[in-house]
Amino acid sequence: MKSQTKIVARYAETDKMGVVHHAVYPIWYEVARADFIKTSGITYTQMEQMGIMLPLLSCECRYLKPAFYEDELNVVTSISLLTPSKIEFDYEIYNSENKLINHGKTMHAFTSTALKPMNMKKHFAGVYNKIEKMKIIL
Amino acid sequence: MKSQTKIVARYAETDKMGVVHHAVYPIWYEVARADFIKTSGITYTQMEQMGIMLPLLSCECRYLKPAFYEDELNVVTSISLLTPSKIEFDYEIYNSENKLINHGKTMHAFTSTALKPMNMKKHFAGVYNKIEKMKIIL
Amino acid sequence: MKSQTKIVARYAETDKMGVVHHAVYPIWYEVARADFIKTSGITYTQMEQMGIMLPLLSCECRYLKPAFYEDELNVVTSISLLTPSKIEFDYEIYNSENKLINHGKTMHAFTSTALKPMNMKKHFAGVYNKIEKMKIIL
Amino acid sequence: MKSQTKIVARYAETDKMGVVHHAVYPIWYEVARADFIKTSGITYTQMEQMGIMLPLLSCECRYLKPAFYEDELNVVTSISLLTPSKIEFDYEIYNSENKLINHGKTMHAFTSTALKPMNMKKHFAGVYNKIEKMKIIL
Repeated sequence: MKSQTKIVARYAETDKMGVVHHAVYPIWYEVARADFIKTSGITYTQMEQMGIMLPLLSCECRYLKPAFYEDELNVVTSISLLTPSKIEFDYEIYNSENKLINHGKTMHAFTSTALKPMNMKKHFAGVYNKIEKMKIIL
Repeated sequence: MKSQTKIVARYAETDKMGVVHHAVYPIWYEVARADFIKTSGITYTQMEQMGIMLPLLSCECRYLKPAFYEDELNVVTSISLLTPSKIEFDYEIYNSENKLINHGKTMHAFTSTALKPMNMKKHFAGVYNKIEKMKIIL
Repeated sequence: MKSQTKIVARYAETDKMGVVHHAVYPIWYEVARADFIKTSGITYTQMEQMGIMLPLLSCECRYLKPAFYEDELNVVTSISLLTPSKIEFDYEIYNSENKLINHGKTMHAFTSTALKPMNMKKHFAGVYNKIEKMKIIL
Repeated sequence: MKSQTKIVARYAETDKMGVVHHAVYPIWYEVARADFIKTSGITYTQMEQMGIMLPLLSCECRYLKPAFYEDELNVVTSISLLTPSKIEFDYEIYNSENKLINHGKTMHAFTSTALKPMNMKKHFAGVYNKIEKMKIIL
């Protein structure tokens, strides 16, 4: 299962080099991740209301080509790893010519609202199964 | 009473026009406002822990001259209005040649953690008096 | 002529108060402004390539209600003032229940790439007429 | 050679989880990197004026502990790799209790203003030597 998210580069996201600033990509990953989760039948907002948080453990970005203001980009998102305690998402960003311009990964812990690690499979089996299913379809 | 806050323009704060993006100034005002409040003997964090929030009602910015990457700026902050239900701060930003480059105001409500308006003078007389004193000194 | 732009509030745009941070609204205005300009038959990118910049002279925001993560918002944009040397845009942001949550204005100078003020009607009559037409339709 | 940069977490940098948003760390790295370069006797601004750009090839962040609003943080920066075509910086962020809360790396290409890769040692031997010296001192 891979979700696709359309992003248009904003003016505020550019820097004096004339391209999108590198710290913007993790924000785009986040937008794409919320879309991915939504396709499992639950929103990120609902997960948080249930008491599930997904703080980051790590983030990796590879910048292959620059993105420019008003570029229409496509973020392709998938799950690259899933365990009861953590989840890793993978992101590929393509420009309008379908060239891969950026590749990233984010590893997240499943935690409580108080940011304590938790066994997702045990405490939220229903949500865990929904997410696992999206990985398998992949 | 006026506080002074030194800010150095960050690369990520510039845009493709080669200058600091206009949406950055309210963030600098916020940094300067926290410094101003700190001089009253209480931090913004402590106010929030006591249950006092300061959400914005309005914000005004006038852009007189651009700011550039690595510019060392001085934000001069003061209170321009204070009532038991709201407070307005005034900001003047000077560049290293002491030229005024930006002028702004932010109007805030005093609210509870649940963002309900409250009478600050009545519920937090001690903090209110500290803030009022800073206005009078002005 | 009024354009409509759909914005979904991003996680990174929220702050510890649990709502969208106030400095985000000028960025949303900018996204909406680019959409508005596009409906005149020219993109903001093309205007910049022709040598027309629109740096801000001032910005005003009124925060009527908070916006929350994943809220689907509608930004309604129009021109409130147009002269050969400057242009003012007006923005109304509505939430999914069609309640007005934010109202803003941005005043811009027409300048050259070097950020020198210029008479837009004189130097770029074609583009000026396109923009003027959008104001009249209003 | 390691430089130290003091950063105070801004309100706008927090998110609804109540902690600093993960996309902020690369911006802090950038502030710290500019400080590091300044200690070599040249500013980042001057390097860009000479025609040297440092776009990112990759970025890695490990989030060990959260950072909170108004936290006073110390970013320790060093060079972990240097070749005539690229440079890698390493960042360790410590909180006020001197606990390591974040560890990151950024790999940069040396490019021209047009973002074309270049041999830094060959085209800007003077600047390259200054940077190399900072690595050796390490």
